[in-house]
Amino acid sequence: MKVGLDVLGGDFAPEANVLGAIAAREELGDRASIVLFGDTETIHSILNENNLPSDTFEIVQTNESIEMGEHPTKAFVKKPNSSVALGFQHLKSGEIDAFSSTGNSGAMLVGAMYTIRTIPGVIRPCITTAFPVLNGGVSVILDVGINAECKPDVLYQFGILGSLLAEQIYGIPNPKVGLLNIGEEEEKGNMLSQSAHQLMKDSKEFNFIGNIEGRDLYNGKADVIVCEGFTGNIVLKQAEALYTLIRKRNVKDEYFERFNYEIYGGTPVLGVNGNVIIGHGISNANAVKNMIKLSVDTAEAKLAERIRKVFK
Amino acid sequence: MKVGLDVLGGDFAPEANVLGAIAAREELGDRASIVLFGDTETIHSILNENNLPSDTFEIVQTNESIEMGEHPTKAFVKKPNSSVALGFQHLKSGEIDAFSSTGNSGAMLVGAMYTIRTIPGVIRPCITTAFPVLNGGVSVILDVGINAECKPDVLYQFGILGSLLAEQIYGIPNPKVGLLNIGEEEEKGNMLSQSAHQLMKDSKEFNFIGNIEGRDLYNGKADVIVCEGFTGNIVLKQAEALYTLIRKRNVKDEYFERFNYEIYGGTPVLGVNGNVIIGHGISNANAVKNMIKLSVDTAEAKLAERIRKVFK
Repeated sequence: MKVGLDVLGGDFAPEANVLGAIAAREELGDRASIVLFGDTETIHSILNENNLPSDTFEIVQTNESIEMGEHPTKAFVKKPNSSVALGFQHLKSGEIDAFSSTGNSGAMLVGAMYTIRTIPGVIRPCITTAFPVLNGGVSVILDVGINAECKPDVLYQFGILGSLLAEQIYGIPNPKVGLLNIGEEEEKGNMLSQSAHQLMKDSKEFNFIGNIEGRDLYNGKADVIVCEGFTGNIVLKQAEALYTLIRKRNVKDEYFERFNYEIYGGTPVLGVNGNVIIGHGISNANAVKNMIKLSVDTAEAKLAERIRKVFK
Repeated sequence: MKVGLDVLGGDFAPEANVLGAIAAREELGDRASIVLFGDTETIHSILNENNLPSDTFEIVQTNESIEMGEHPTKAFVKKPNSSVALGFQHLKSGEIDAFSSTGNSGAMLVGAMYTIRTIPGVIRPCITTAFPVLNGGVSVILDVGINAECKPDVLYQFGILGSLLAEQIYGIPNPKVGLLNIGEEEEKGNMLSQSAHQLMKDSKEFNFIGNIEGRDLYNGKADVIVCEGFTGNIVLKQAEALYTLIRKRNVKDEYFERFNYEIYGGTPVLGVNGNVIIGHGISNANAVKNMIKLSVDTAEAKLAERIRKVFK
């Protein structure tokens, strides 16, 4: 198995990406080899500094990157030789089994839509985050930012997508799906959550346990937490703010340490025809390492293929 | 000045309420006297246990309460002699200057709407919460739950209401108003936040500083954080969940201790024709004490009157 990494994306490119790849390679062993999309000379020099031979990784040469501030669609179209565009070409042709980047996440989404495309039947692809649960494991929350406006049937599909992710990647059998809302009763909430509840309540496609509230976000009441991307993004960033505070206040606690985004590496883009992982722009080498490992997990689980089968 | 307290509301009624009133009375001194709405005999017995004379408080006799599970409107109409209904009658007639309760918050809202009514010009009354800011002080977030669905002009008014609250009750001059969103740029977000941003950006009625994100919730970037009640309620409960975790994990930290809801006592209902405070159902005596003090602060600041003037 081969997984591709965008070496030019993210705030600490290329260094953090190459170092992350070196660390991932050691941990992955024979499970997968990593293909780097970036500048050969720079990569060789970083490898050299780390006493590794030039042929440690297969490299697809490019020194064109899509910057953080660029308009995703325009940049993707105008830069067919950028690391992101080349990565998606290789993913589409099957030369790599997964592609990950900590760069411009909009461009990653555009790349996915334009090349490998949305799985037929999936209304809207989405991204997720994993929240540490107090008694161990994680809850998956989706969408966390690319669908600021959703219809009830989109939320319903998030229940299916999130269940597959929780089961296949996080090893949670028959995951409990909760709808994030402002009350437990089905008539609570706004028009969207009320309608989504009605669609979900008799679902045979996932294990719906009803509404959950903000206070349930860390207690594992649901394994999959469904919401539109507006609320999900604010919930995610509030949790990140908490982790920042914990660090700033110098609180040492095993559980709160698990809020460190580095551990999770990134989020798969669910609902597209291939295994695509988006990492945090501020990723350091450790986060990149875990993003690459997540891309291997996702490819091994054949997550995109499983989603395709369910939506057939 | 006289402030009213519902003795029959909340999970620990009547004990926590009477004990809270006793503690508040000591701290308030001559600033205000407290009028209790509840059962005289029970109140006398609690006073007696605390070596206080029967005439410590003025009491309005009732032993009829609106329970937590009751339908707010139906219960309020059917129980004109309930502590909540009597409290609002006294507030409307001017016999008390503020009324507070930790009971059925829906019934408190219905009571406010039916008796003292919404201030003309205010589209939707709202409730708020105070978040501790790392460098001291608080940010005010609104709405936190009674308006799950809002139009842009309602969010705009929350900017005005929140500014008055921050200024008058929390002593923040020219408060910075931020719109809670999923990106800093004005085109980010859902249709509601995009439209609200357009209304707010040239406002001369409050000091709009633009969008803020979930990661800014604890950093004091904005003194007033505006959102609809769906997002606000989830944000509030997520913060409560954090505090629960901090307690559970036995983390000792001065800043996180300030997430204790007891400190804030409750939320004024903004936009109604009188000073009404709603407390948390789980309030203990300390929380009730602070709720009563907040009701005095609100009445002294003539908050409802100021809002009325602004919306004239």
